[in-house]
Amino acid sequence: MSLLVQKFGGTSVGSVERIEAVADKVISYKDAGHDMVVVVSAMSGETNRLVDLAKQVDSQAGGRELDVLLTTGEQVTIALLAMALEKRGYAARSYTGGQAKITTDSAHNKARIKSIDHVRITDDLQDGRIVVVAGFQGVDEQDNITTLGRGGSDTTGVALAAALRADECQIFTDVDGVYTTDPRVEPEARRLDVITFEEMLEMASLGSKVLQIRAVEFAQKYKVPLRVLSSFEEGDGTLITSEYGADKSMEQALISGIAFNRDEAQLTINGVSDTPGVAYQILGPISDANIEVDMILQNVSADGTTDFTFTVHRNDFDTALKSLEKTAAQLNARELSGNNKIVKISIVGVGMRSHAGIASRMFEVLANEGINILMISTSEIKVSVVVDEKYLELGVRALHEGFDLKTES
Amino acid sequence: MSLLVQKFGGTSVGSVERIEAVADKVISYKDAGHDMVVVVSAMSGETNRLVDLAKQVDSQAGGRELDVLLTTGEQVTIALLAMALEKRGYAARSYTGGQAKITTDSAHNKARIKSIDHVRITDDLQDGRIVVVAGFQGVDEQDNITTLGRGGSDTTGVALAAALRADECQIFTDVDGVYTTDPRVEPEARRLDVITFEEMLEMASLGSKVLQIRAVEFAQKYKVPLRVLSSFEEGDGTLITSEYGADKSMEQALISGIAFNRDEAQLTINGVSDTPGVAYQILGPISDANIEVDMILQNVSADGTTDFTFTVHRNDFDTALKSLEKTAAQLNARELSGNNKIVKISIVGVGMRSHAGIASRMFEVLANEGINILMISTSEIKVSVVVDEKYLELGVRALHEGFDLKTES
Repeated sequence: MSLLVQKFGGTSVGSVERIEAVADKVISYKDAGHDMVVVVSAMSGETNRLVDLAKQVDSQAGGRELDVLLTTGEQVTIALLAMALEKRGYAARSYTGGQAKITTDSAHNKARIKSIDHVRITDDLQDGRIVVVAGFQGVDEQDNITTLGRGGSDTTGVALAAALRADECQIFTDVDGVYTTDPRVEPEARRLDVITFEEMLEMASLGSKVLQIRAVEFAQKYKVPLRVLSSFEEGDGTLITSEYGADKSMEQALISGIAFNRDEAQLTINGVSDTPGVAYQILGPISDANIEVDMILQNVSADGTTDFTFTVHRNDFDTALKSLEKTAAQLNARELSGNNKIVKISIVGVGMRSHAGIASRMFEVLANEGINILMISTSEIKVSVVVDEKYLELGVRALHEGFDLKTES
Repeated sequence: MSLLVQKFGGTSVGSVERIEAVADKVISYKDAGHDMVVVVSAMSGETNRLVDLAKQVDSQAGGRELDVLLTTGEQVTIALLAMALEKRGYAARSYTGGQAKITTDSAHNKARIKSIDHVRITDDLQDGRIVVVAGFQGVDEQDNITTLGRGGSDTTGVALAAALRADECQIFTDVDGVYTTDPRVEPEARRLDVITFEEMLEMASLGSKVLQIRAVEFAQKYKVPLRVLSSFEEGDGTLITSEYGADKSMEQALISGIAFNRDEAQLTINGVSDTPGVAYQILGPISDANIEVDMILQNVSADGTTDFTFTVHRNDFDTALKSLEKTAAQLNARELSGNNKIVKISIVGVGMRSHAGIASRMFEVLANEGINILMISTSEIKVSVVVDEKYLELGVRALHEGFDLKTES
């Protein structure tokens, strides 16, 4: 017998029928002997409907009152789910964020959880009740209603699991787990049984958007085992955990997956003088224009000048290029160039920490396919390359094959 | 400068446009120097939509979770209204029933307000903010969300006005005040400037359903001046107060209005022995069948037997008659009869207390029109007669004319 926190997103509770299916699923776990806390989002479409209403009143709607409005979405779902559970003969009780004593800071629309007083939930669990909590919401210390920002229900689930010391936080979504790469690109992509938090964070930030990054960080910080499962299909999903168990040796798990990002654009200033402050002079204006920078590369210089390259989201390419023209002139740069037809492909895996050969294996695989590498960047558990966008599918499939991800390692 | 509590019902906030009109109206009072607290209902149709959702899950939906669900309706409205006020440059803050610290008992779906801690609202008013409060809802002492039952927003308004010692509680509806009688029956019916709580209670319980009876009782108990106004038209509406001001003498205000009730049915048992316990034997089974009884009449008997008559809602007539057949047999009654084609017409006015001639004037007016009176019942400030339903319109108009209600007294 264990304590599980399960989170169901908007699609999973998108209609009365689906809410009833969630009730049946929760009950199957309850019947198996688990204590159950369930976190739910607003029914799909509901948050958009409420935002539309707000925008009719004020196109700039935000702040305190938007949170009062939007939190009604999850409140509807918790009531309906608790009703469905009670209808099936199971004692249940719903709580809004405020009632569940989820205290946040006062940053409306994007609040962060500060603490959870779980006494009442624990009492309910001891009395055998299934507890249903509204995701995405809390109250600040003055009892003002706050929201955690879009998708924050994952974070609510993880935070509750941490506060309650739950055995697992299970996130039910419309996919059945985390894959070695996007199955739409590589049909032979395989669902991972286990992945580490670090790997998951790299996969998530690179576009495998199964989970909110914040929720994963939260789970990692509080050591909450996190599991991604499908609301609609049976299966064990993917467990995201601090480290692989003893049954999975590091030698075998060199690479967990191939992540990629289609929307990259690259900007390069060639031949600027290699003096302190150059990087700041180049990136300052970009940052001031609220453009997020992804990769940043600068090579060691030989002739006293250096080449500076960075990547941005493709949508920001034109703005960034315009801003950079001024900077290039100021810096007497030799050349300014850019390319918005590039993609980033990364191999991710904690196993590569101790394996110097991983990067060269990656380059070999790509070379065998005739794929020219434009940029390279590495981190502890990731190697990323930038290539022409036309090579995306070929590159992902070749790496998937080259690192033998089809078969379970 | 005074403190006003204004309440706007579902029709008044039925769309974004109407919510914006409410914002403009509230601002016009704020600009005139008043401190403003605004209570709102759910947008019209919203409560029904939520009830439908609940019934899809559980046709018997009720209790705690129904309250969690339904209270989202007003929460949407408070947020939108506060946004509309802020958009117009006025500081505003919305509160759910729980945030406004409206504490109720734990009778879900029909809770009663126990106390209001208005410190936070008072602080807001002192800071110049317009306070917007969700009607119809509160929390019990364990922080469970409760509702006051349908239409309870009027009660919220009055309770807040009482707690805040507001100068007036203004209920905005789709009618522009309380009339001397139903204008659909008597086109010359006149809007009353002032009416007493007692008169209003008699008028309301007799079918002039402008205000919730509970709200009127509450206002009377806590001496909160109550005003009924139209959301859609200009005008001063009708003030409901403890007693008429010095400018309106009792001599003039004999009768305030003519109330009537179409849905009456009458049942009579003739010739039962006039012994203690007979009334209980007759009405006990009726009450057990959850049938509400309105008028009860029993005349002094001469021959040791008596005739016992009471009225019920027309929908309950058949059930009541069936139940009474048994009783009549047990009591050896001479006859059992009934009539479900009757109506009740009442004249209401505090002035009649000291005027014995009022009742006889009423009977004279009806006699002049050839209307046969079937039953008579009187109270301190009311005389009711039961007549054949075909005389309803004729009777109401004749009395309206006979008591000179067309012209302001």
